[in-house]
Amino acid sequence: MWESNVRRVTPYTPGEQPKTSNLIKLNTNENPYPPAPGVLKALKDMDYTSFRKYPDPTCDLLVSAVSDTYGIAKDRIFTGVGSDDVLAMAFLTFFNGEREILFPDVTYSFYDVWAELFRIPYRQVPLKEDFSIDPEDYKVPNGGLVIANPNAPTGLKQPLSAIEDIVRANPASVVIVDEAYVDFGAESAIPLIDKYENLLVVQTFSKSRSMAGMRVGLAFGQPKLIKYMLDVKYSFNSYTMNMPALILGAEAVRDTQYFEETVAKVVATREWTKKELCKLGFEFADSSTNFIFAKHKTVERDYIFSELRKRNILVRAFNAPRTKDWLRISIGTDEEMRAVIAALEEIIKSENNSV
Amino acid sequence: MWESNVRRVTPYTPGEQPKTSNLIKLNTNENPYPPAPGVLKALKDMDYTSFRKYPDPTCDLLVSAVSDTYGIAKDRIFTGVGSDDVLAMAFLTFFNGEREILFPDVTYSFYDVWAELFRIPYRQVPLKEDFSIDPEDYKVPNGGLVIANPNAPTGLKQPLSAIEDIVRANPASVVIVDEAYVDFGAESAIPLIDKYENLLVVQTFSKSRSMAGMRVGLAFGQPKLIKYMLDVKYSFNSYTMNMPALILGAEAVRDTQYFEETVAKVVATREWTKKELCKLGFEFADSSTNFIFAKHKTVERDYIFSELRKRNILVRAFNAPRTKDWLRISIGTDEEMRAVIAALEEIIKSENNSV
Repeated sequence: MWESNVRRVTPYTPGEQPKTSNLIKLNTNENPYPPAPGVLKALKDMDYTSFRKYPDPTCDLLVSAVSDTYGIAKDRIFTGVGSDDVLAMAFLTFFNGEREILFPDVTYSFYDVWAELFRIPYRQVPLKEDFSIDPEDYKVPNGGLVIANPNAPTGLKQPLSAIEDIVRANPASVVIVDEAYVDFGAESAIPLIDKYENLLVVQTFSKSRSMAGMRVGLAFGQPKLIKYMLDVKYSFNSYTMNMPALILGAEAVRDTQYFEETVAKVVATREWTKKELCKLGFEFADSSTNFIFAKHKTVERDYIFSELRKRNILVRAFNAPRTKDWLRISIGTDEEMRAVIAALEEIIKSENNSV
Repeated sequence: MWESNVRRVTPYTPGEQPKTSNLIKLNTNENPYPPAPGVLKALKDMDYTSFRKYPDPTCDLLVSAVSDTYGIAKDRIFTGVGSDDVLAMAFLTFFNGEREILFPDVTYSFYDVWAELFRIPYRQVPLKEDFSIDPEDYKVPNGGLVIANPNAPTGLKQPLSAIEDIVRANPASVVIVDEAYVDFGAESAIPLIDKYENLLVVQTFSKSRSMAGMRVGLAFGQPKLIKYMLDVKYSFNSYTMNMPALILGAEAVRDTQYFEETVAKVVATREWTKKELCKLGFEFADSSTNFIFAKHKTVERDYIFSELRKRNILVRAFNAPRTKDWLRISIGTDEEMRAVIAALEEIIKSENNSV
């Protein structure tokens, strides 16, 4: 039967994208602010007749804009359809050995999905009790490493020295550092790519650049590493990035001032939210991202989740053994977060009174 | 060393996308006409603030538009980032056996690249001398089949009865029918999907719908087949289609009248071009596509190619043993084709005089 040849997988479950608009949507770590104004202008100027042609397979317009903004040569930059596409290509390119790849037990839950998809052996290394990473755990034989910094869904960052420690200890493996949230408060490992040819740093336009809907992801590494990934990419799909992604992505990355202002606003809102959550009896790892991973000291997670949902506030709940008591709350606008805190206050008060 | 784990591949080489505009570009089978007018309107109406959110992972807007236009239920439709993405996902999903997959020796040269990428054993079945397919060649044990109809780069179509013959004879294999060019003159196998659960029909918006720059591809099959592909897709990237691809793709497929007019214009120009090429001493398989695969009876292929290039006309030349004497000329506007024929006339005359 043809079905005996089918690749059977358990896909990643993305956060809900509800079609109702009457909702405070804090479940997928989207940026509450629109993309840079240049994106609007480029959208209005876009020539629809050009769509009849194939886009540039080298993505030069976008790669050049990234190169200018980051001050990194073009042959050290890879672009993909969101960082998911970049990470999938990196797994496919670099993790083909017999030895297992390693990543934390609590981290982005797509890593094990890619490993399963490509039949890559893997082991999930337990984070410490406080959700931090012990670099010593990654100084064992392995076929590759994946470290999210800051980590998700915990929000916790590692100092760059810990990342470098791991990269330095593993010259025989490619180390992927997934920096989806780095702009909100951690130090990027990009400066280390000159020093370590086994380091691949992955970033995304989906969070700090407000371009989740455009699907733009990046990787940085030495030219040899990037070339291997490009060979795999060109063996998968010659033209992964469509014209709007190239044209509008370039505008989104060029506007450094808007980027910094937006990130600063999200960070300020996050810090205010932390204080309020504290007052309400929540505990959480100290977030360096655009979300907070929190647990209430007395009130049950699922109760809070469903009470928020009743009030048209959508947050994210994972169900793995170590995440099943926690809520992941994305940082929205000040107004949205005031509404969330008011709702939580009401939920927790009524529950405490009922006990 | 980390390099010992790298997946080493020889990528597909897409046709050149030159940055100069002063060129008659007939090398990548693009449509000479712009997308449907609804695409322009939807582009102008697009809300850039929505880009901060993730796109709908189910691609419902686009899938619904395809469903309406084709009269096919939504659970029988898969969408991807161009038909290359759709085909890559199909290879990854369905071809995991020990037995080799089969496809013609002269066909879309990405099939063997995907097979190599995913380490799928394969065998290239020689086309007959006239470039036609013998269905009997595909009635042997195999792990899957890929048939382009019409075939590329030959341009030759098979009757639907030959396709059905192959699908019927292979209930133990998934048969992919790649219909990238079907709208220009062949009969689609889509009506057969109800009858055969092992049939996957792949189409693209890049040719007949003038949307190469937007990267939209389709597959049609029974819900079980589509579900297997979706599982793999969601294990690779939750959101492959960005917002412009969903919104503008839906507009491109809805306008049936524009589509039919555009295709009819390309077909009329192709038929005129065939007659002119005949007069100039070219031979070619009878094309049912938006290109002609032609060889001159006396003048060498590479000479014609480079003389056209000197005149700012870009066509495509492949270099496999059975394609190295042939030119693939995409069908442009009437004006472009008149210029090509005039240039060829000059090239052939001067070469014949010099002999």
